[in-house]
Amino acid sequence: MQTKIDSKISEEIFQWPIGFYSDATAAGIKPGKKDMGWIYSQSPASAAGVYTTNQFQAAPTALTKETINTSHKLQALIMNSGIANSCTGVQGQKDALAMQKMAAKGLSIDPSLVGVASTGVIGEFLPVDLLSKAVTKLKLTDSTDLTKAILTTDKHPKTITIKMQIGQTQVTMTGFCKGSGMINPRLATMLGFITTDAKIDGELLQKTLSAGVDDTFNQITVDGDTSTNDMVVVMANGEAKNPAIQQGSEDYETFTTGLNKVLSHLAQAIAGDGEGSTKLVQADVTGAKSHFDAQKAAKAVVGSNLVKAMIFGADANWGRVLAAIGKTDVDLDVDGVSISINGYPMVKNSQALAIDETPISESLKNPKVEIHVDLGVGNESGTAWGCDLTYKYVQINASYRS
Amino acid sequence: MQTKIDSKISEEIFQWPIGFYSDATAAGIKPGKKDMGWIYSQSPASAAGVYTTNQFQAAPTALTKETINTSHKLQALIMNSGIANSCTGVQGQKDALAMQKMAAKGLSIDPSLVGVASTGVIGEFLPVDLLSKAVTKLKLTDSTDLTKAILTTDKHPKTITIKMQIGQTQVTMTGFCKGSGMINPRLATMLGFITTDAKIDGELLQKTLSAGVDDTFNQITVDGDTSTNDMVVVMANGEAKNPAIQQGSEDYETFTTGLNKVLSHLAQAIAGDGEGSTKLVQADVTGAKSHFDAQKAAKAVVGSNLVKAMIFGADANWGRVLAAIGKTDVDLDVDGVSISINGYPMVKNSQALAIDETPISESLKNPKVEIHVDLGVGNESGTAWGCDLTYKYVQINASYRS
Repeated sequence: MQTKIDSKISEEIFQWPIGFYSDATAAGIKPGKKDMGWIYSQSPASAAGVYTTNQFQAAPTALTKETINTSHKLQALIMNSGIANSCTGVQGQKDALAMQKMAAKGLSIDPSLVGVASTGVIGEFLPVDLLSKAVTKLKLTDSTDLTKAILTTDKHPKTITIKMQIGQTQVTMTGFCKGSGMINPRLATMLGFITTDAKIDGELLQKTLSAGVDDTFNQITVDGDTSTNDMVVVMANGEAKNPAIQQGSEDYETFTTGLNKVLSHLAQAIAGDGEGSTKLVQADVTGAKSHFDAQKAAKAVVGSNLVKAMIFGADANWGRVLAAIGKTDVDLDVDGVSISINGYPMVKNSQALAIDETPISESLKNPKVEIHVDLGVGNESGTAWGCDLTYKYVQINASYRS
Repeated sequence: MQTKIDSKISEEIFQWPIGFYSDATAAGIKPGKKDMGWIYSQSPASAAGVYTTNQFQAAPTALTKETINTSHKLQALIMNSGIANSCTGVQGQKDALAMQKMAAKGLSIDPSLVGVASTGVIGEFLPVDLLSKAVTKLKLTDSTDLTKAILTTDKHPKTITIKMQIGQTQVTMTGFCKGSGMINPRLATMLGFITTDAKIDGELLQKTLSAGVDDTFNQITVDGDTSTNDMVVVMANGEAKNPAIQQGSEDYETFTTGLNKVLSHLAQAIAGDGEGSTKLVQADVTGAKSHFDAQKAAKAVVGSNLVKAMIFGADANWGRVLAAIGKTDVDLDVDGVSISINGYPMVKNSQALAIDETPISESLKNPKVEIHVDLGVGNESGTAWGCDLTYKYVQINASYRS
């Protein structure tokens, strides 16, 4: 399967799939910075989305969910950063609809084909008049400025472009996202957008996306806080002209593998760019009774403040890994757990091995840290990603809004 | 009821109840510091305990649970700090039994009347020979040194003594505890010990304790990590000579209120002394459908890293409070939530109130911060306690073990 997929994750080679256009501009929400933009497909694309489970779902998130679920079609996405349009009541719903309409008007398409995404301060209202003016400046280009315009405290844009062989056709899939926690004071949101020129039915795309996020976006954590605006949206416009991908086919396997690769890359990019982080942390759990258990245990490891702090300090303190797992209700053999850190075995049968910790501590200074835990009760495995807990994280989140 | 209870929480007036004796000494686990000691009752006391739910329960915790559950009687407790005797397998079980036996021998009582508690490094073995020598130095005194000997990175001992009027008899209840998170590298544990000269049946005491911890110790969080050694033990020796307290009586109400007062004080003392903390945070949730929901929501607020960091930074960033609650599955009115911080209303009907934030930010510099959330769907309430997230927390938990 891998030979049918060619992935390029360098920002330089980021490339929109056939028939997708984009642009970004400065509407004036964030002084002197580009803060809004759109994606447009020359033909209506199959669309699928997953959305925050936070009970306070923001107005644009709710609107995009409703729009996609109606027909599983989208032709455009309009988005802004700086203000999340969350906890804004009826006015917020009106403002999200206004964004949908202004994009539809500018692109001469039906509003029911436009998704809306916002990220930023919770509880403030959007300056709809500023956005209305700015939208007239947006063009249809191959610019990648949008991947920067949606950022907040992210250190860098997070993008990926892959090529897949679907039947006789080469298709392109491109993803980008923003998010490094619930981020700055009152700033919220993880947003992920994936475009592809592959041809695939919308409902099948939804099914594939929903399955894919379980092992990717749902397995990352920066600070355990779920924002009100999270969404991941996929648009597939079919402009590569491949025969439509059918469930169960070899092409479907290729497409699923490719999509999961994109989701996994973007999810890890968010974890690695977590607020104030200096290291990406990967927890692999094996020997579990179920995949669900393994995923839960892995997420407990990367979610523990104590594990996160020890990784910042390059301290191979396995007791914290063990305590983090023991706190969960996953099936495990209390006398049969093994732990290794960056490949160095440290615990066997739930007891310390007599080892020299020096090389382990040294290895913890690397930009990626891998923790492996075997629960000793089965054959299932799972993985989760997070980052270290640093002074910078506290600084960013404790500083006054200015 | 309050008029029947006189509480003194100053460390200076800490006083053992009638018939309780204690001592502490330096066994050599922590160089140059007292690190072990005991509590002894002149007669076997009714005993009750609650224990960690971490699946990796330490050997002393498991032994004390077994000992108390057999007869609900204890006459002594032996304890040490520095090494947790956790994840130590069969050898650890033998070492915990050895501690139980050495105390029994020194006190000339049956080992089945001795509880054991350890706190410190996970995965290391106890120096049983050192402890055996040290135990011969322990006497029966009114010293309060034990309240210090069990500390690790705690900034200060956490104690309380209250007097209650039970029928015609004045009874004393004294509690102390240690814990400020899962604390230093490889150090673990929250330990709480309460002694009283009140006369009450052991099983009734267990019932009262189990109910009491739900609203106190189970409602605090410093870092979300549950140690392997947590325990809270109550011993009631009846030496005040009151008629035995009967369930449902007025005296039982007084006793329960007093015990809950002690538990609540100790729990808040741990939260306020959380690792690196500068402030105690209290979250009160009202308007909930159930007490359980209110407790869950309150704990979500004090457990959020983003809320904790904003309190460190004295930033009245209510969006994070709302996001923390929205992340849970508790029943709430998404358009009817109110939030106030230190008594200042900030959110009504889930939307921002137009207010001057200056006095609120000023008030967040106080050593105690109170956050109130009304969920708008019922009449039940709940409370939880935590602390702020600081540079110091990261420093303590990231620093190399030395």
